[in-house]
Amino acid sequence: MFQITLEWALLWFILLVSVAGLVYAILLIRQILKKDEGTPAMVKIAQAIRGGANSYLRQQFRAIFPIVAVLTIALFFTAYLATTTYYTAGTPEAIFYGAGRAGAFVMGSVFSASVGYIGMNMATRGNVRVASAARRSFGEALQIGYRTGTITGMLTDGLGLLGGVIVFMIYQQYAFEVLLGYGFGGSLIALFMRIGGGIYTKAADVGADMVGKVEKGIPEDDPRNPAVIADLVGDNVGDCAGMAADIFESYEVTIVSAMILGYLALGFAGVIFPLLVRAIGLISSIIGTYFVKARGEMKDALRSIKLGFNTSAVISIAGFFIGGILYIGLSNPPGIPLGVDPITLSIRVAIATLAGVILAISINELTDRFTSIKHSAVKGLARSTNTGAATTILRGLSVGYEGSVWNIIVIAAAILVSAVIFVGLPPVFIFYGVALCGIGMLTLTGNNISMDTFGPVSDNAQGIGEMAGLKEGEAAEILAQLDSVGNTTKAITKGIAIASAVIAAVALFWSYVSDTGIGIIDVANVYVFIGLLIGGAIPFLFSSIAIRAVDRAASKIILEVRRQFHTIPGLMEGKAEPDYNTSVAICVAAAQRELVGLGVIAILTPLIVGFLLGVQALGGFLAGVILVGQLLAVFMATSGAAWDNSKKGIEAGLYGGKHSEAHKVSVIGDTVGDPLKDTAGPAINPMIKVINLVSLLIAPLIVYGLVEAGAAIGAGDVGAVIMDAVIGFVLMAAVGVVIWNSKKESKEMLQIIEEMQKQQQK
Amino acid sequence: MFQITLEWALLWFILLVSVAGLVYAILLIRQILKKDEGTPAMVKIAQAIRGGANSYLRQQFRAIFPIVAVLTIALFFTAYLATTTYYTAGTPEAIFYGAGRAGAFVMGSVFSASVGYIGMNMATRGNVRVASAARRSFGEALQIGYRTGTITGMLTDGLGLLGGVIVFMIYQQYAFEVLLGYGFGGSLIALFMRIGGGIYTKAADVGADMVGKVEKGIPEDDPRNPAVIADLVGDNVGDCAGMAADIFESYEVTIVSAMILGYLALGFAGVIFPLLVRAIGLISSIIGTYFVKARGEMKDALRSIKLGFNTSAVISIAGFFIGGILYIGLSNPPGIPLGVDPITLSIRVAIATLAGVILAISINELTDRFTSIKHSAVKGLARSTNTGAATTILRGLSVGYEGSVWNIIVIAAAILVSAVIFVGLPPVFIFYGVALCGIGMLTLTGNNISMDTFGPVSDNAQGIGEMAGLKEGEAAEILAQLDSVGNTTKAITKGIAIASAVIAAVALFWSYVSDTGIGIIDVANVYVFIGLLIGGAIPFLFSSIAIRAVDRAASKIILEVRRQFHTIPGLMEGKAEPDYNTSVAICVAAAQRELVGLGVIAILTPLIVGFLLGVQALGGFLAGVILVGQLLAVFMATSGAAWDNSKKGIEAGLYGGKHSEAHKVSVIGDTVGDPLKDTAGPAINPMIKVINLVSLLIAPLIVYGLVEAGAAIGAGDVGAVIMDAVIGFVLMAAVGVVIWNSKKESKEMLQIIEEMQKQQQK
Repeated sequence: MFQITLEWALLWFILLVSVAGLVYAILLIRQILKKDEGTPAMVKIAQAIRGGANSYLRQQFRAIFPIVAVLTIALFFTAYLATTTYYTAGTPEAIFYGAGRAGAFVMGSVFSASVGYIGMNMATRGNVRVASAARRSFGEALQIGYRTGTITGMLTDGLGLLGGVIVFMIYQQYAFEVLLGYGFGGSLIALFMRIGGGIYTKAADVGADMVGKVEKGIPEDDPRNPAVIADLVGDNVGDCAGMAADIFESYEVTIVSAMILGYLALGFAGVIFPLLVRAIGLISSIIGTYFVKARGEMKDALRSIKLGFNTSAVISIAGFFIGGILYIGLSNPPGIPLGVDPITLSIRVAIATLAGVILAISINELTDRFTSIKHSAVKGLARSTNTGAATTILRGLSVGYEGSVWNIIVIAAAILVSAVIFVGLPPVFIFYGVALCGIGMLTLTGNNISMDTFGPVSDNAQGIGEMAGLKEGEAAEILAQLDSVGNTTKAITKGIAIASAVIAAVALFWSYVSDTGIGIIDVANVYVFIGLLIGGAIPFLFSSIAIRAVDRAASKIILEVRRQFHTIPGLMEGKAEPDYNTSVAICVAAAQRELVGLGVIAILTPLIVGFLLGVQALGGFLAGVILVGQLLAVFMATSGAAWDNSKKGIEAGLYGGKHSEAHKVSVIGDTVGDPLKDTAGPAINPMIKVINLVSLLIAPLIVYGLVEAGAAIGAGDVGAVIMDAVIGFVLMAAVGVVIWNSKKESKEMLQIIEEMQKQQQK
Repeated sequence: MFQITLEWALLWFILLVSVAGLVYAILLIRQILKKDEGTPAMVKIAQAIRGGANSYLRQQFRAIFPIVAVLTIALFFTAYLATTTYYTAGTPEAIFYGAGRAGAFVMGSVFSASVGYIGMNMATRGNVRVASAARRSFGEALQIGYRTGTITGMLTDGLGLLGGVIVFMIYQQYAFEVLLGYGFGGSLIALFMRIGGGIYTKAADVGADMVGKVEKGIPEDDPRNPAVIADLVGDNVGDCAGMAADIFESYEVTIVSAMILGYLALGFAGVIFPLLVRAIGLISSIIGTYFVKARGEMKDALRSIKLGFNTSAVISIAGFFIGGILYIGLSNPPGIPLGVDPITLSIRVAIATLAGVILAISINELTDRFTSIKHSAVKGLARSTNTGAATTILRGLSVGYEGSVWNIIVIAAAILVSAVIFVGLPPVFIFYGVALCGIGMLTLTGNNISMDTFGPVSDNAQGIGEMAGLKEGEAAEILAQLDSVGNTTKAITKGIAIASAVIAAVALFWSYVSDTGIGIIDVANVYVFIGLLIGGAIPFLFSSIAIRAVDRAASKIILEVRRQFHTIPGLMEGKAEPDYNTSVAICVAAAQRELVGLGVIAILTPLIVGFLLGVQALGGFLAGVILVGQLLAVFMATSGAAWDNSKKGIEAGLYGGKHSEAHKVSVIGDTVGDPLKDTAGPAINPMIKVINLVSLLIAPLIVYGLVEAGAAIGAGDVGAVIMDAVIGFVLMAAVGVVIWNSKKESKEMLQIIEEMQKQQQK
């Protein structure tokens, strides 16, 4: 009885901590909003950016809303379709869980969207305030930028934790059914935000650069460029809104999988421990981020940010070791298997969590190795610009492929450690260990997001400064330095999003194995193997569509920008203003267009495999998606960042610096890398998890795969076989239509190209 | 008793057919050699090419020899290490099998090397005779070129079949142990030929094009280009020697896996049926290829080649249906499971084989869809050259990713059909069905290689014609048309090599499952999952190293060619001769350098996984290698061919034609695609199979994975655990050294770049 009381006390404590995180976010918002917005020119530009960003997000939400509504209803009605071991379809219990699943789905969606929306909105308010503060001091500008990021970080931590605790308090031992809905909501919105934001930002960026920088030779963020506002809006919708929703979702899904597997392994204690770790992480993030400030300049700033991170890490690790030993080790809660020593067990779970923290740090280090100009990979890439665009592209592909190899090996090592630590206990502990590794990895999400968001905020601040006339002098210098700090901090944290997605997906995969009760997923079975092959193809399909979407939208913007330079007299001389709205409109339309299609693929393909090939084949499908998704996502992130930084290295003076032939070549590399690292790659993370969660949700509905039709018909279950077949083939047709549709070139595009052809020939 | 006699009669018949194939090849060789070699200028150029190609291959064999020798000894000594269910380590029986394995390994290696060497040598003799015959008639030139290819085709068929039959006649029911050695020998040599040839040909090609075409604006195959001979040599060592060894290996490995699984499923009859199918295929290829001739011009030629293919296909399909029904259905051989109707079974096996033929045709069609300028994918790619190099690269990546998706779906469908056809029979029939699908796919290898080799031969013929002064007039026109026919036939057959590699690998994978007796490979087991992750990383690692090798070698050639244009007065005006030897030497050195490293990775990584993580994890590893290898190989082949053909489309007049901005951009795409489609991609095929075969060979030696150490130590097997660990970690260190070594930049390279930098700055 005392145990239960202790556990409820802990749950209430965790709930309080999550609220404290949200309160802290609100305090920071008020603090930032009090700062001044600078000159009227700055205000005007910032408003244009904010307006563009908000209107994009409103349209985005409008497009997503019907899908969320349909899925909410569908999730509710699963209560009438599936019978599990503890309730029968259609009974009040089933409806209670169905309603919970649907409600949690809405909660997950709303939380994810809120983090994205508020985070982005604050970024579009923080950026101008950083630009303004840069006229006063480096330290103040840094703090505004960093704290703008901390707001998103605290919202992620606070909302992610809050949702998990609330669901568990209500549904307790049956929470896992409802948690799936929560995870699904967050992942789905993140997927949409990543796709939409990614397409928007890179279409604008590539379009602006290809004509502005490469053809016309005008600098970045030049107000003469008709795509410059779209480009600045893009930074916010992609790097802030998309990224925030994505990390929120990883944070949330790792909690969901740790709670599910934790309950199976240890009962209540197995659920409370990961929540406790996250609560401790939240507290340590508040402490660590609060003290980030810089008196001096750049080096000082990086040192302070790093110190903040290390402080949080030390507090957090100490916290979860002490918390683990006190709670699991000494209070000896119920649920610990007979014959297992609680103290040893508490140390084991703490070590699995620690493996996650070490994994996060290792991934950061590895990302740095393959994407920083300080190391040989990018140095070699920069050197290859001397022999032309083709060798630069090839070298970048090679760097990316290698980066993903080491990444997967480090991840495999972390999984191995978190698994081996539980040797001798039942297999579910091994799965739980991997889930705890995910918990550890994202414990310091508060710090990570602060560092990550700081990147686009300082980037935007510099853009606003540039456009508002802060071209020289100390303020411009400070903004350039802040941008550089932001690039570094952003690069450091980038690898974690992908690696944590993989760990979360692996944990979900094992939740699938445990939840479906299939026990094994035998790839030596031909149907499972086919599932594996098809699963592996999905990230390729996804990337193909996403890259083409950016290419198509960017091409439109290139043509539009060329058209404006061609037809607006005096634009190049700065005597006339470009029309910024057309580029914004092209980006919004492009983002909208692909959104639904890619979402449909992620939701429907697991259904098709499940209904046609059965539950075990669906497990093979998931393994394929995780494996190839991870490799492709890291490859894209690594190549993209390597090209980006080799370009920056050349701009900093290597091989002739700016305006050299090498620089032109490096811009091509950078432009190729952009949609890889900022559109296709990041969208794979939420995609992997959406597919896993959909599979978990539909698993109870799959009666037979068609391949088991023989046995089913023998058992007289002809109706079920026919139903599965019909569902499978209808959905297959739907996906076919979506893919077909994504390939259609708009006629308008063809016309524009023909016109341009004619113009050039004249 | 009658049954055995019938079976021996069939085996002798198959043996005779394989010898007939070899005799036909010799007849064709004599026929070709009788043709005249044309003008002294042609003879001189052809001799330079043949000399370069032969000296490369000699050096190649010298580098490979020690590895083959060491492995032969190691294979022999497995007789003293492993005890199986039917022999004890060290006994005369074990030595009999060990010697067989080693001997078959040598036979596989020698056959593969011979096909490569003779095929290439004949190509370097056929090319000049085609050029010479072009001065007389289109029809004669076509026939010489096509028959040069048929020689390689017949060698592949004849030797591949001969080896399989001989091994089976000697070792009978224990043949599978020995067959693994045969398959391994062929695959290993193919791997080396693919890597070496691929690096050589693309370093030369990229180097020659980047300076010659892009910087200097001189045409392809211009004698002023210092890398032109290296480029022509490269076509032979890559597209002839490398490709021939590769297809030989696929042909052989599909036989090996069908024989192994066939014996498990049906006994003798299961082995003889696939051999019979191949023998029928050989006969139908002789008939189909013999009648290929053209009276008229291009269209007529393509029609005749296609007619030849279709004739062979019809004879072959009719043959294996009739043969299957007569032999398995009506003679009712022993080995058919009780209660199974022989007639139905014979139709089932024939259908599984037919699925392979249909798969081959579908893959050809699919390849065409994604790589031919007639279809929308490449049309869209050509269009994207209008918006610059970056959009062209992106679009090409997108096309490649999509191509691999459809490819894998078609392959999955074929596997599904060949599996489902055996529903109701034991699982080993399902595996056998997939192996038969592989048998069907490569039945018409004779025709396919004729079409494939025709490509480089006609390409070379045109190069020789160009260099020997045949620039205008009817002969030049004929050579251009033949080159175009060659490009078409080559493109059609390209997809089969990869798809057949996957089918062969899948069959080997199931041989692994059956052979090790593990029964299942459960990816829900954490160690298997880790094996899967690491396996998936291998093709990425491999590609990364291969691409970098080409990039590095090509960069050296670029610098060397630039240097010659810079320092040899009168070269550009055609008054002075370039030094062709330096480029040849650079290519040879580059090919040699990477050869061993990549081979070592393919051989040692399965050993590491096996010894450290155990037999089941090694199964996961294989699944990962197959999945990712397939996706990556098809992606690379598709993107590369799409870029190539979009360039050709522009050269044929699209978007301004040659010398337009779009053309320059398309050349960059083509140059990026070259090492992907001709080096990294094709090397993945034999790599997948080498890894599978190594796994099959070492499986009996793996006592425990380290992960099972606990159980092993409990059982008192401490010595075995320590041995496994030591072997695993030592090999891991060795692979680490190889990877490290592959990344070192030569100092010489850095010096050259620095010098170029200085020159440019002046």
